[in-house]
Amino acid sequence: MDDIAARHTKKMRRIKAARDEMMKTKTEERGLIIVHTGAGKGKSSSGFGMIMRCIAHGMPCAVVQFIKGNWETGEKTFLREGFAEECRFFVSGEGFTWETQDRDRDIAAARNGWRIAQEQILDPTIRFVLLDEINIALRYEYLDLAEVVTFLRDRKPPMTHVCLTGRNAKPELIEAADLVTEMTLVKHPFREGVVAQKGVEF
Amino acid sequence: MDDIAARHTKKMRRIKAARDEMMKTKTEERGLIIVHTGAGKGKSSSGFGMIMRCIAHGMPCAVVQFIKGNWETGEKTFLREGFAEECRFFVSGEGFTWETQDRDRDIAAARNGWRIAQEQILDPTIRFVLLDEINIALRYEYLDLAEVVTFLRDRKPPMTHVCLTGRNAKPELIEAADLVTEMTLVKHPFREGVVAQKGVEF
Repeated sequence: MDDIAARHTKKMRRIKAARDEMMKTKTEERGLIIVHTGAGKGKSSSGFGMIMRCIAHGMPCAVVQFIKGNWETGEKTFLREGFAEECRFFVSGEGFTWETQDRDRDIAAARNGWRIAQEQILDPTIRFVLLDEINIALRYEYLDLAEVVTFLRDRKPPMTHVCLTGRNAKPELIEAADLVTEMTLVKHPFREGVVAQKGVEF
Repeated sequence: MDDIAARHTKKMRRIKAARDEMMKTKTEERGLIIVHTGAGKGKSSSGFGMIMRCIAHGMPCAVVQFIKGNWETGEKTFLREGFAEECRFFVSGEGFTWETQDRDRDIAAARNGWRIAQEQILDPTIRFVLLDEINIALRYEYLDLAEVVTFLRDRKPPMTHVCLTGRNAKPELIEAADLVTEMTLVKHPFREGVVAQKGVEF
């Protein structure tokens, strides 16, 4: 073994010891409130990646899509056609709000989505609920922020995970959450005239 | 229709018109070089969300995992057991580098992963390739950065998407990429003693 390799082994042994020690303190199992926000890619797709993990682990789950909905997405086809038992899939919105151009209809759709969301979260058989693009409905005040935050804090079963996605997550929601990621846009091909790509964006 | 609703309709009609006009300029179809980096959650899970989309759209895909690999993850079980034809799944690494404590073995594993990655990217039947945690192998210089970037730039088929994940993406890779997202850690329950949760983290 040469010098670099020997130094590497020693360093990694030290890291592993420190890490093993640290991991001993990480013992709590808890249902998390997870928020994916920011202008970058990956807020919804990461939620669907977690849905894949849940299905693999035999954890029943549910998706409520608040804004997307009018068009066919890969995730909707995939889950509805292949995993209807493992993952319940609900669509409340009828597209982005500039497509419907009807605020009252958008509000009614969002409130219907939130009603379904509460049922799924309270359902003791469901372990993970993805509320896709709910942050948009909260931002436009189609849903009452205090009601949503209070429900998540006080009524979510302790072992149930809820993941809320969408840009401009409200500070009160971030405050209530356990795990928050901001997807930051570094570079996007859209600016160069590239259309949304199948498999990547939908 | 009340005043707020009427103003909303007018505003949304304006947004839609501007958006429709803008969308006319977005026409190019292109295989993208996608990078997910940053210390936050969602780099790999978003990659697996895109794999779900590809499978739904009938786009054959491949995963090469560079560092994770020693343990059973939901995504590996799910894809290997359910979608072996739609998505080829390769594991090159044997765990994080502090687990193996053997630099030479890590390097050999990373290089083997990169050899497989090149084959998959060049395979004309494959439309999307996820190189999970390759950024870690690049960061530790287990792979030659210039070789990887040159290959992606010059030899990747024009319509094939490649998604590279992992912290500390190299600037040269970001420069070569089309779509880059930094997953920024806002809040993580790990700090409070919560262990990695099944379905969420793996």
